[in-house]
Amino acid sequence: MPDVPADLHAATIAALSELLGPRVTTSVSAREHHGTDPSFHPGAAPHAVAYPHSTEEVQRIVQICAEHRTPMIPFGAGTSLEGHVHAIHGGICIDLSQMTRIVRVSPEDLDATVEAGVTREQLDHHLRGQGLFFPVDPGANATLGGMASTRASGTNAVRYGTMRENVLALRVVTARGEIIDTARRARKSAAGYDLTRLMIGAEGTLGVITEVTLRLHGVPEHISAAVCAFDTLAGAVDAVIETIQLAVPIARIELLDALQMEACNRYAELDQPVAPTLFLEFHGSERGVAEQVETVQQICAEHGGAGFRWATDHMGRDQLWKARHHAYWAGLALRPGWSAMTTDVCVPISRLTACLTETHADLEASGLFGPIVGHVGDGNFHVLLLLDPNDPEQVRRGEAFHARLVERALAHDGTCTGEHGIGCGKLDFLTREHGPAVELMRAIKHALDPAGLMNPGKVIRPS
Amino acid sequence: MPDVPADLHAATIAALSELLGPRVTTSVSAREHHGTDPSFHPGAAPHAVAYPHSTEEVQRIVQICAEHRTPMIPFGAGTSLEGHVHAIHGGICIDLSQMTRIVRVSPEDLDATVEAGVTREQLDHHLRGQGLFFPVDPGANATLGGMASTRASGTNAVRYGTMRENVLALRVVTARGEIIDTARRARKSAAGYDLTRLMIGAEGTLGVITEVTLRLHGVPEHISAAVCAFDTLAGAVDAVIETIQLAVPIARIELLDALQMEACNRYAELDQPVAPTLFLEFHGSERGVAEQVETVQQICAEHGGAGFRWATDHMGRDQLWKARHHAYWAGLALRPGWSAMTTDVCVPISRLTACLTETHADLEASGLFGPIVGHVGDGNFHVLLLLDPNDPEQVRRGEAFHARLVERALAHDGTCTGEHGIGCGKLDFLTREHGPAVELMRAIKHALDPAGLMNPGKVIRPS
Repeated sequence: MPDVPADLHAATIAALSELLGPRVTTSVSAREHHGTDPSFHPGAAPHAVAYPHSTEEVQRIVQICAEHRTPMIPFGAGTSLEGHVHAIHGGICIDLSQMTRIVRVSPEDLDATVEAGVTREQLDHHLRGQGLFFPVDPGANATLGGMASTRASGTNAVRYGTMRENVLALRVVTARGEIIDTARRARKSAAGYDLTRLMIGAEGTLGVITEVTLRLHGVPEHISAAVCAFDTLAGAVDAVIETIQLAVPIARIELLDALQMEACNRYAELDQPVAPTLFLEFHGSERGVAEQVETVQQICAEHGGAGFRWATDHMGRDQLWKARHHAYWAGLALRPGWSAMTTDVCVPISRLTACLTETHADLEASGLFGPIVGHVGDGNFHVLLLLDPNDPEQVRRGEAFHARLVERALAHDGTCTGEHGIGCGKLDFLTREHGPAVELMRAIKHALDPAGLMNPGKVIRPS
Repeated sequence: MPDVPADLHAATIAALSELLGPRVTTSVSAREHHGTDPSFHPGAAPHAVAYPHSTEEVQRIVQICAEHRTPMIPFGAGTSLEGHVHAIHGGICIDLSQMTRIVRVSPEDLDATVEAGVTREQLDHHLRGQGLFFPVDPGANATLGGMASTRASGTNAVRYGTMRENVLALRVVTARGEIIDTARRARKSAAGYDLTRLMIGAEGTLGVITEVTLRLHGVPEHISAAVCAFDTLAGAVDAVIETIQLAVPIARIELLDALQMEACNRYAELDQPVAPTLFLEFHGSERGVAEQVETVQQICAEHGGAGFRWATDHMGRDQLWKARHHAYWAGLALRPGWSAMTTDVCVPISRLTACLTETHADLEASGLFGPIVGHVGDGNFHVLLLLDPNDPEQVRRGEAFHARLVERALAHDGTCTGEHGIGCGKLDFLTREHGPAVELMRAIKHALDPAGLMNPGKVIRPS
């Protein structure tokens, strides 16, 4: 981690200390923790970390930083994967994890407003017993503010959509230090530019999200979960495609390849077959679920599926999805001391079999090593490329593999990132994907943050 | 309609004539037609109307206009309602209605790409027999480009969402005269700012949409439609609210008040009871629809509903929805020679009964006259205020009523426009609703269209 001169931004830190007292820190451990993510990207520590307790405090922090031209990096739970939180130009980390108020839950409108630091699990716990749930589930116990910032999705997106579809409004502190609400609580509106969607996925480069108004959903009357192992990867993928094309309203349909199953068996002490496997979940009325299950079982059987193993009770389902959620750590545990380069392409569903099997072949041919896991109902999959950080030649081959994978996804009319975002890790891929449209993004960035202080070096490379 | 000096923008028109030959016209009838919408707002004719046949021709038109600093107004079917197409600063109307190519339909990915001038009915006709449909249905036979530009929704939005949720990507000619694609065909992406959602609802003020990539849906196995009359308006609204809160996946649930039913009976030669009435439609498997119908029938009975009258065959359903779609013209026919001021507020569902009954009382107290119709499943309703354009005092009272209605909706955490947009008719309401956030919108407008030539005077009032 590069060392930063401690006196840079000293005036900013002094002003913040006056505002926040002990809730601003320059301790090495706090700074290093906040300048690192679980990814392969080299970390970069901020000069200080501030812990606001309210939107108004965030506003003051932004005003102080703006006055002293100090970069600002919003931080939630630090679970993003593309160097989003790395302070590559130094500055102040605004850690929102102490803003954990659940402002309002309106069961009658199926919505809620939470502060940015509320985590997915905290919200889930709060809603339990009210017959409501929030569906976006990226696996990690991320904050809702962070999930909005990175346009997160996860296992439920195939049925319920991503943060894009499940956020009604945001409270944001702009780069000018103003507090705005991007929208009201109405389910739809045609009033002006869609600032909500602009801030979702902006990764803190256009402002700091401090409150999130979310769509909630009623807990389904009936939930069933199952796993199904397949003879071949292509068979599993073809079963997914047919399920989606038949518009079965499946809630989750996740693919783990044989290597990932082996990793999960070890890590989570499961005894699933080591084979390409689908993790499935069905939501609906009892009759509705029965209909869905019947259809999908038939589809799986036709593509070499070995039959469903069921987990219908809450505990069984929890264990199943915990294994799925721990896929990243389970994968990492295959090679202790190595790092993971996660890829995140997403393609139209009709291209998924081609893209996945070509990628699998490329992986084998390149002598690299990594499990594959995917939200395949969306056309999204990850190769968790395991690399020895002390072997630069291997890392270089990993990067070349990743670049080929992105080119392959783009050729299939897909995207370089389905859900992880750009951060500082995919700047070149963004340009490859969007071409001249990146200039519009740059113009928007410059218009809303002319001084370039909001999470600089992320999403948009300065011109 | 204000007269414009014919020689202004003469150089632009000469250059366009060279490009397009007879596909640019300065005829009075074409200009007047393109500077008028069905609304109450005074029209304003453009200097000329251009009919491009391709994205590349639109690009050349934009480049020519930019060179001569001539305003540009995109035009689809001219069915928008807030003066969106009025050339209030003169300039060139870019009429996209001859760009009617259906570029691609991918049944296996449930998506399609169409040129901006393809209309809803043309697409519907094209998809028939392929087992697919596009759900967004604003009533009018609008173009898909226009629907994207105004963030249109309509009767199906309660189940399928609005244009915001049903557009995957757009091809846009920017104010700089560049052609960009806002996204690829992947179902989700976290790659950079959401330019797709930014252009949806921008009403042609940030660029000209020339192609739209749409999500399609499978035609449901079973469709049933019904009407149900109620004792009271509040009873009908409460039935809607309970249906939504129980998360019944109803496809359409529309409210028409007694006056609107009377108008529809006359206009469409129906014989429905003159009472507050819900128009309902259920989509799903046969069993699924039966479940939904059972639930909703029970809810309606509990709120004073008089039982369902069914229309299950295609013709019967068509007749029913035609009556609903003609509500605007049926309402207008109640007062020949008068004009309609349409309102368009949308509130959280829990506030709908209060907002609607207060509005009904206000309407009666103010001595004004107009039927009420609403996409009440979304919390969205319209008062079709009928006004004698030759009675300025009445028009003034109408405007005051509209302003009170918007304040009421905002007080209920709602929006001034659920689906019609801002155009030049709701500029002040936008500021009331968004406060300081309008400055962000203005900054974006200025960044993407520094010369202010893209549909000037719409959405954002120049500062």
